[in-house]
Amino acid sequence: MKLDHTARGVFPIAPTPFLPDGAVDTKSIDTMCDFYFSAGATGLTILGIMGEAPKLDADEALAISRQVIGRCEIPVIVGVSAPGFAAMRNLARAVMDAGAAGVMIAPPPSLRTDDQIVTYYHNAIEAIGGEIPFVIQDYPLTLSVIMTPAVIRRIVMDLPSCVMLKHEDWPGLEKISALRAFQREGSLRPLSILTGNGGLFLDFEMERGADGAMTGYCFPDMLADVVRLSNDGKRDEAHDLFDAHLPLIRYEQQQGVGLATRKYVLQKRGAIAHDAQRAPAGKLTETARAEIDFLLRRLAKHDPRAHF
Amino acid sequence: MKLDHTARGVFPIAPTPFLPDGAVDTKSIDTMCDFYFSAGATGLTILGIMGEAPKLDADEALAISRQVIGRCEIPVIVGVSAPGFAAMRNLARAVMDAGAAGVMIAPPPSLRTDDQIVTYYHNAIEAIGGEIPFVIQDYPLTLSVIMTPAVIRRIVMDLPSCVMLKHEDWPGLEKISALRAFQREGSLRPLSILTGNGGLFLDFEMERGADGAMTGYCFPDMLADVVRLSNDGKRDEAHDLFDAHLPLIRYEQQQGVGLATRKYVLQKRGAIAHDAQRAPAGKLTETARAEIDFLLRRLAKHDPRAHF
Amino acid sequence: MKLDHTARGVFPIAPTPFLPDGAVDTKSIDTMCDFYFSAGATGLTILGIMGEAPKLDADEALAISRQVIGRCEIPVIVGVSAPGFAAMRNLARAVMDAGAAGVMIAPPPSLRTDDQIVTYYHNAIEAIGGEIPFVIQDYPLTLSVIMTPAVIRRIVMDLPSCVMLKHEDWPGLEKISALRAFQREGSLRPLSILTGNGGLFLDFEMERGADGAMTGYCFPDMLADVVRLSNDGKRDEAHDLFDAHLPLIRYEQQQGVGLATRKYVLQKRGAIAHDAQRAPAGKLTETARAEIDFLLRRLAKHDPRAHF
Amino acid sequence: MKLDHTARGVFPIAPTPFLPDGAVDTKSIDTMCDFYFSAGATGLTILGIMGEAPKLDADEALAISRQVIGRCEIPVIVGVSAPGFAAMRNLARAVMDAGAAGVMIAPPPSLRTDDQIVTYYHNAIEAIGGEIPFVIQDYPLTLSVIMTPAVIRRIVMDLPSCVMLKHEDWPGLEKISALRAFQREGSLRPLSILTGNGGLFLDFEMERGADGAMTGYCFPDMLADVVRLSNDGKRDEAHDLFDAHLPLIRYEQQQGVGLATRKYVLQKRGAIAHDAQRAPAGKLTETARAEIDFLLRRLAKHDPRAHF
Repeated sequence: MKLDHTARGVFPIAPTPFLPDGAVDTKSIDTMCDFYFSAGATGLTILGIMGEAPKLDADEALAISRQVIGRCEIPVIVGVSAPGFAAMRNLARAVMDAGAAGVMIAPPPSLRTDDQIVTYYHNAIEAIGGEIPFVIQDYPLTLSVIMTPAVIRRIVMDLPSCVMLKHEDWPGLEKISALRAFQREGSLRPLSILTGNGGLFLDFEMERGADGAMTGYCFPDMLADVVRLSNDGKRDEAHDLFDAHLPLIRYEQQQGVGLATRKYVLQKRGAIAHDAQRAPAGKLTETARAEIDFLLRRLAKHDPRAHF
Repeated sequence: MKLDHTARGVFPIAPTPFLPDGAVDTKSIDTMCDFYFSAGATGLTILGIMGEAPKLDADEALAISRQVIGRCEIPVIVGVSAPGFAAMRNLARAVMDAGAAGVMIAPPPSLRTDDQIVTYYHNAIEAIGGEIPFVIQDYPLTLSVIMTPAVIRRIVMDLPSCVMLKHEDWPGLEKISALRAFQREGSLRPLSILTGNGGLFLDFEMERGADGAMTGYCFPDMLADVVRLSNDGKRDEAHDLFDAHLPLIRYEQQQGVGLATRKYVLQKRGAIAHDAQRAPAGKLTETARAEIDFLLRRLAKHDPRAHF
Repeated sequence: MKLDHTARGVFPIAPTPFLPDGAVDTKSIDTMCDFYFSAGATGLTILGIMGEAPKLDADEALAISRQVIGRCEIPVIVGVSAPGFAAMRNLARAVMDAGAAGVMIAPPPSLRTDDQIVTYYHNAIEAIGGEIPFVIQDYPLTLSVIMTPAVIRRIVMDLPSCVMLKHEDWPGLEKISALRAFQREGSLRPLSILTGNGGLFLDFEMERGADGAMTGYCFPDMLADVVRLSNDGKRDEAHDLFDAHLPLIRYEQQQGVGLATRKYVLQKRGAIAHDAQRAPAGKLTETARAEIDFLLRRLAKHDPRAHF
Repeated sequence: MKLDHTARGVFPIAPTPFLPDGAVDTKSIDTMCDFYFSAGATGLTILGIMGEAPKLDADEALAISRQVIGRCEIPVIVGVSAPGFAAMRNLARAVMDAGAAGVMIAPPPSLRTDDQIVTYYHNAIEAIGGEIPFVIQDYPLTLSVIMTPAVIRRIVMDLPSCVMLKHEDWPGLEKISALRAFQREGSLRPLSILTGNGGLFLDFEMERGADGAMTGYCFPDMLADVVRLSNDGKRDEAHDLFDAHLPLIRYEQQQGVGLATRKYVLQKRGAIAHDAQRAPAGKLTETARAEIDFLLRRLAKHDPRAHF
């Protein structure tokens, strides 16, 4: 079941569950997979930036991938970004052998010119092999690499194994429109576009032509609902639900605090047993936890899933 | 009427009104000043990043400052950030002579170490003179300069003319708490903290100890209401009003598109005659304008001020 | 006498002479101009980064430009880089009215994509007017903007008033070769290429096709000699002279310390009366001054111009 | 034989030898080790940035380390910089078990504030264990992390296992003086300082108080000579030899081209069998190779070791 350009819906960016002592919480990996499946996820993305991937060693990354792939009945995308191509190739091939649907590759922060970015993806695909479906991760806020729509088009048209864009530019609404316009004019082949940024613009991203969301917001079920309502043309219902969650989406969007918030709520929801991060860990203060609890109580008035 | 550490409420970051041909729209400067005063502003900040200050030449910057100061009955803070101290000093002294309440200084993006940042403010104040009240602009997202709470404390304690922090770190809630904790323990003298980031976290920033907002959201009257409700302890009312505006706050928060959004709404509200920016200008597409109109219609159900 | 693509030889980057109290040292401006002329300069570039341009206010920048232009019998290029186009246009037009040969424009550090860079130059030339000859300053080490040869070609081919590249990429030898290859294949029109980086690679830059040097090394007479020897095909003589200066060129290349070194030697050589910089100033320690003196003594064995 | 603060002399930064097909050239690892030993190296540093470390996978990195440690009779320092602490710990512990003398740790480019840098080293040492001697790599030009002398002092004084600074700031002469002054005043404990930057300032670095060099210039024997001559007080002899090499040192200093130059000369000198880099590889053009050959011919007049 390999990933292709028809992928749609919600591919949550899964966190990596840890025990309080920093070991991987293998038991929670299973409950987390089940949680995402029940929430309506159509796929799952692991070992992304929010998955604390750089904190794992090579063996751990592979073991986690195997467990998730084994547990999930939906396609699994594995983040294989690495400082060098040897490590990237090793992980990419191993997870594909284990049954992954595809891999995701982020550009290293040192890239600047258009040609450097395109060349990087050429080199990466030469390293991992052209038969592995891959996702471009376009996340300038964290990676400081800026890809124009034309650069994304060059990568997609040059490299047939590119099937998806994880769209996380900011601002990015016009970028979706530009890419879809390329397709209408025939200069870009079909491409799945799933959006990130914690879902902060999902309401309008769907209207601009996104196929769904690939982000880690702690209510993936809401993401799935908004995608569905939007696809069904129920615009106001989509926005009503989205707006009810926006105060929490916004809170979770804070860098550093964001992952702690996410794990805190996922623990409350029973998806994982602990909200621990591996060191160095972002931590919630008492005040922050109280703020999140307050937001959940307010949210519960509109969405009973926030009621604990 | 010089600025001091007791400043509170809302100091909107004012845009600079332009005519469609790029000339300064002096007529709109007056209507804009009146608009902000009617909206409940307790002060006004001009020539900030969102005020397109770098697009103005020295004479224009001074002329605008004089007109705003002459029109406003509230304290006016003027942004005097510049690549060099000669230009900074000239503008700072001229606007103080014209009746400004104080000036705001952002660190140049090249600063890295703690000592470089503190030294920069020492040099800046040596250049403009120690008698001019000044505001530290702490805006890492755009300026890429990261000031720890301890660095801010060093600047405040070293330089008596520092009276205010424009707090715009992200995430920044814990920073407000840290600074207020410094004050409780006696290591930091009184300091006004007004928050930015388009108001995206104003609800909780007030609860953490902010004195108000210094940001350019197109409904300054809402910012004033949230500050007042929060000060009055009406927590749920504050959040209800804030949440109703959050979809638009979020939309306006997009870099580049943000200022265009802001001017578009301010024009609709009659504050300025044109939503023009001086070149190079961020522009709204038809789709973007329709999205903003849609957000305003939804907002109008909760806040009649959004009804046009 | 407007600058065009036939410009050759040495256009020293002139420092701005200051008095010890920080005022502009107008008397030294004249002696400095005479010094550069006697040293064999074929042109002069003022108000560059090494000219402490950002420390000057608009009136000072114009006054210095007028004095230099009035004193020099060779073409003068004025750096007009500015955070905004209003200031850039004002200075560019005023110095051209005063008799400047052309202006130099550096891209702002925030530019990333190829299109952003090209668009910036389009906007800049729209602002200053297409009749003013301009120089592209390509200096990634300090500006963090990376222009590929193809991007430079786009700027040159789009904008007829572009007549020169101040080449300061690092490494940059292949860039000169690439641009000259573009010209041989007919895709790039004639362009003067003068090189920077303190002269650190001038020996090979000439061999790769540079037309000369535009840099501030404290022995412009040596730069002129190397350019001449290289043009005359006296390869070993060119390298012998260059190598004798390399220890000092290398010393002067240190960022921050570099300008202090340069002014210290220029003062010794009688070009300027004081080695003062306007605050904030890089300063030489006693040890650094002794190191420079030691280098000069060693250099004097090969080049009597270093004998004081 | 663990590394301590008394380390002196030359610890070359060794490249990683590859076969033309990109496989590790294990045979050349032995010849290279012997070459460095014969050249007068007092230690060896492997898996640094110039060692193409990020291009190796975990198993390769360990295998290379073991081979080098087994072959060398001098202390070996292994670069263990990694995006996360799990990978860093694994490699650090494995190479220490294999007999390494210590490890080198560079800060990740995202660090900004003084506290972030110090905390990073605390976390790294907590991860690898406090019994492993480590070297701070201070290389702002490539890493964009700026450590003041005071920050280095905090790291050294907080963490007893810190025994050495790889000094590669630029400019950096005053930094050596500042650290040695800290020691004289008693605020900093003994620390070995070896300098990098391709040796470009080794002449004066020794005079400022460096203990030697840790850099990859293709004539480590010259580095060893300059260190010895400088230690013996033979100042002019040290500079004479250094100056003869400076044109080539300077050429090798070009980023990207530098490693290709280095491997090209090391191959000529018989240290390694191939000048291949693993993809993505910087390559020398014909012109560049001719330039290096020209520099070697000129150098051979002063230093017979450059005669091939």
